[in-house]
Amino acid sequence: MLSHVLAAPAQLKALQSFNEVDADLMYQVLEEAGKFVNDVVAPLNRSGDETGCRFDNGKVTTPPGFRDAYQAFWQAGWPALASATEDGGQGLPAVLEAVLYEMLSAANHGWTMAPGLLHGAYECIKHHASEELKAQYLEKVATGEWLATMCLTEPHAGSDLGLARTKAVLQADGSYQISGTKIFISGGEHDLSDNIVHLVLARLPDAPPGPKGLSLFLVPKFYADGSRSEAHCERIEEKMGLHGSPTCVMRFDAATGWIVGAPGRGLNAMFVMMNAARLHVALQGVGLLEAAWQKADAYAKERRQMRAPGRGKSAAEADLIAEHPAMRRILDTQRAWIDGARVLAYRTAIELDMLKHHPDTVRKEAAQRWCTFVTPVIKAAFTQQAFYGGSECLQVFGGHGYVREWGIEQNIRDARVAMIYEGTNEIQAIDLLVRKVLADGGQAFFTFLSELQSALPAGTPSSARVVQRLKVLEEVTRKLAASAAQDASLSYWVADDYLRAVAMVLMDWAWAQIEHSKVGTGLRWSQPAQAMQRWVMPEFSMRLGIVEQACETVTL
Amino acid sequence: MLSHVLAAPAQLKALQSFNEVDADLMYQVLEEAGKFVNDVVAPLNRSGDETGCRFDNGKVTTPPGFRDAYQAFWQAGWPALASATEDGGQGLPAVLEAVLYEMLSAANHGWTMAPGLLHGAYECIKHHASEELKAQYLEKVATGEWLATMCLTEPHAGSDLGLARTKAVLQADGSYQISGTKIFISGGEHDLSDNIVHLVLARLPDAPPGPKGLSLFLVPKFYADGSRSEAHCERIEEKMGLHGSPTCVMRFDAATGWIVGAPGRGLNAMFVMMNAARLHVALQGVGLLEAAWQKADAYAKERRQMRAPGRGKSAAEADLIAEHPAMRRILDTQRAWIDGARVLAYRTAIELDMLKHHPDTVRKEAAQRWCTFVTPVIKAAFTQQAFYGGSECLQVFGGHGYVREWGIEQNIRDARVAMIYEGTNEIQAIDLLVRKVLADGGQAFFTFLSELQSALPAGTPSSARVVQRLKVLEEVTRKLAASAAQDASLSYWVADDYLRAVAMVLMDWAWAQIEHSKVGTGLRWSQPAQAMQRWVMPEFSMRLGIVEQACETVTL
Repeated sequence: MLSHVLAAPAQLKALQSFNEVDADLMYQVLEEAGKFVNDVVAPLNRSGDETGCRFDNGKVTTPPGFRDAYQAFWQAGWPALASATEDGGQGLPAVLEAVLYEMLSAANHGWTMAPGLLHGAYECIKHHASEELKAQYLEKVATGEWLATMCLTEPHAGSDLGLARTKAVLQADGSYQISGTKIFISGGEHDLSDNIVHLVLARLPDAPPGPKGLSLFLVPKFYADGSRSEAHCERIEEKMGLHGSPTCVMRFDAATGWIVGAPGRGLNAMFVMMNAARLHVALQGVGLLEAAWQKADAYAKERRQMRAPGRGKSAAEADLIAEHPAMRRILDTQRAWIDGARVLAYRTAIELDMLKHHPDTVRKEAAQRWCTFVTPVIKAAFTQQAFYGGSECLQVFGGHGYVREWGIEQNIRDARVAMIYEGTNEIQAIDLLVRKVLADGGQAFFTFLSELQSALPAGTPSSARVVQRLKVLEEVTRKLAASAAQDASLSYWVADDYLRAVAMVLMDWAWAQIEHSKVGTGLRWSQPAQAMQRWVMPEFSMRLGIVEQACETVTL
Repeated sequence: MLSHVLAAPAQLKALQSFNEVDADLMYQVLEEAGKFVNDVVAPLNRSGDETGCRFDNGKVTTPPGFRDAYQAFWQAGWPALASATEDGGQGLPAVLEAVLYEMLSAANHGWTMAPGLLHGAYECIKHHASEELKAQYLEKVATGEWLATMCLTEPHAGSDLGLARTKAVLQADGSYQISGTKIFISGGEHDLSDNIVHLVLARLPDAPPGPKGLSLFLVPKFYADGSRSEAHCERIEEKMGLHGSPTCVMRFDAATGWIVGAPGRGLNAMFVMMNAARLHVALQGVGLLEAAWQKADAYAKERRQMRAPGRGKSAAEADLIAEHPAMRRILDTQRAWIDGARVLAYRTAIELDMLKHHPDTVRKEAAQRWCTFVTPVIKAAFTQQAFYGGSECLQVFGGHGYVREWGIEQNIRDARVAMIYEGTNEIQAIDLLVRKVLADGGQAFFTFLSELQSALPAGTPSSARVVQRLKVLEEVTRKLAASAAQDASLSYWVADDYLRAVAMVLMDWAWAQIEHSKVGTGLRWSQPAQAMQRWVMPEFSMRLGIVEQACETVTL
């Protein structure tokens, strides 16, 4: 995928920052990552789910083996793969980090939550904290020696951060005292690392209500002198899955902390890394679906059940599950999702690299457009696919899929949360349609669509097919922009359908790239390609039909 | 639904068997059932999930309160509601039992598994067992004093019962010794009732291979003299959900039992009650979706989050979740599924009553057609909806949906199994299309479609809409029958799409009945009716489009 479909090594090597990064180095890094994930992280997945995290009087104990694995992980330099060398990182492209996290999520979603939160915290501290704070915290977070949290949500408010009430009061020494309760704090308390760095949204006494009154503060678990802060874990949640990750209720009791960035710019400081964070959640979806698919595929190739149609009598008393059309269809369709998803997710990571490192403004603008429009789509579509498509994979096992033994039911339970966090999938859809596509009447989006078209291989049948769909998408978008001008609520009703239609056309685009590339031939690639067109793409017209009908209702 | 949409009381009262059953009696029974479910069964749902069943050295302990609740349940006569009076039952219509089980599943799916298995066992013993066996077991099972199991699946074979290897050897006294291992046996061992009656598929020494070599045997846990049989529970499965129901691996060590029905007719004896069993699983789907919906609806009406589009400034700092289009859409769509599903499921129960009690052969044939074609559709469609639609309801809670506290994640975990057991949903689709619709080139199915059309209210816009869809379905079915004649595997590839299309047209039909009835007016009914057309029905054309395209591929 990286070389043949995305030409990642060539693209990245052309950048000044990565002129020593070639394909060999990239694959060597990923090979080593694969070994670490396979040998150290994957074996803890099931016991992590079964044992879970334990809470006792403010302390959280993670499942056996979790701390050792994490210590080995950061000491081997994995969290710092794409961090800047001056911060103790390795300065490698973000796309390698993306592939690493896909593997980690496939192997052990719960454990991966802890390091997964480092990267946003690192960027946040790097770009917004004072020099003093950076001196104390930046390298520790960049290397992962200390883990970090994002403390946003409060008990009375879920996605609506503007309602946050946690207070921050300035002290004589320039520090602040933070007081309030935060919920759904992944890794708020644990035994994985020797310190935990909390980034907390709070409100200064004179701040206006709503999101613009929020500032960001850093509160560590332990201060430099070794004393314990007043950031306490009150309890951890019992959840559907993700038992390896403690989801904490955190109480800040006049905890001493320091402001990160300017007062009232708290959301701004957190939202700069939103695209990267959403890409990582999209990759969790890809990883979890891959994990489910691998299990189902292996089972279907080994287990025999009944006669498949069109098969003659064989020596065995029944045919392989993989030979039954209903099961073949599930396996090919989910394979098609995973492969197409990888193209889109890795490409997004490459665009993030371009955005950061490319010298040319025009190229950077194109990268920004890609990230703007693609990120919410892949976050929503791939996390949904991990749950619904993973559930299809579970179905391949019959009754065995429902029991713990085969591991696939854990993938489904773990996957469900990704449809919710980092902005629910409904919020992604509104972000895409209302805040982005329609914000300028569709102009930037149409530029993006034409860029997609230009990037298609010339003259292939699949390109022609995608071009046709891009055209239809543009037409419906124009219709929608006109109707939305008459009824402000229209786009909120159809945002989910619209996002799905965009997801379909992006997947179609990704498969046109795969089919044109030299990535591989044979049934391994032709069956998913066919499944994509037969079973997945019909949703494109259905979704746009729903959007058009809604537009007509407004016009009438 | 029962009175206004389905005219159930009038239809049933017209039957000799139910001439003393009027609407008052029916609603009184359901009222009492509701109280029992609410007061006794529902409170055990969460603790049943959390504590689960425990296995210790062959013994299974159900969660605290489960035995007492079950003892109260059978002693109050609930399992025997629709059993014949001569067997100790109350002789009431099956439709009341259907509503009872919908409530039970909504309240506590795990607990409900135990009595849910009684009804098939009762019919099986009643129609196929010898007089001697009946004298010992029929009333005990009819009343539910003793619980029962169905021992079908074996470790090496899931859905493919023909591969079963369990042996039955005739003894001098006419009894048999049963030896083998059965898996996925719900309620194979527990402490709910004083005895357990196992119905076991096994093979006589001279039996041919495949399904026709299977016979059915009855093996109790305890014999009449109080001695223990050699039917042992080896372990119970750890599952995704349904923790209140022990899923047992059963080992039969030359356990003494007796044949039920003729040798080689084991599947026949079990499959006569298949429609009733599949209806009950469909009702589990309806119940679990209703449970998820009720939770989401209550939450959405109480919780405020952000400004909804088109709402002016209000006193509150945010609008209700229920006022946000993305959430309103989920709630209305799932409500539409539940209401339409009830019409179809209750109607199926009524048709089962007709099949059993109506004097007229023509009416019985129509009832048989309804059950034949509708049962696999509602089993697959409603269990899928319980999981996927229930997951949508979970989404209304945001992060709270993922934690145990609100109970909805349990509904989703519990619901997942219903897509698998009692014939996987893929098997339902093959049953519908291959074994039923296409078996006679579509003739019986077209008769059924014309009966659906005749049963529509005359001259309403919704009827016209349904008639149009019925016509399209018939056309595509004809095309499919022609193409399937050329390629035997075609129908296996598109069976799932075909079942979905039939589900859509049945739901549309159900809603045409609801809209025409006097069941209710206002937003409670108009919003789901609209949601059905806007968000659900577009799938009808998409699915048939997939089927048609597959037909064209064959023709080419």
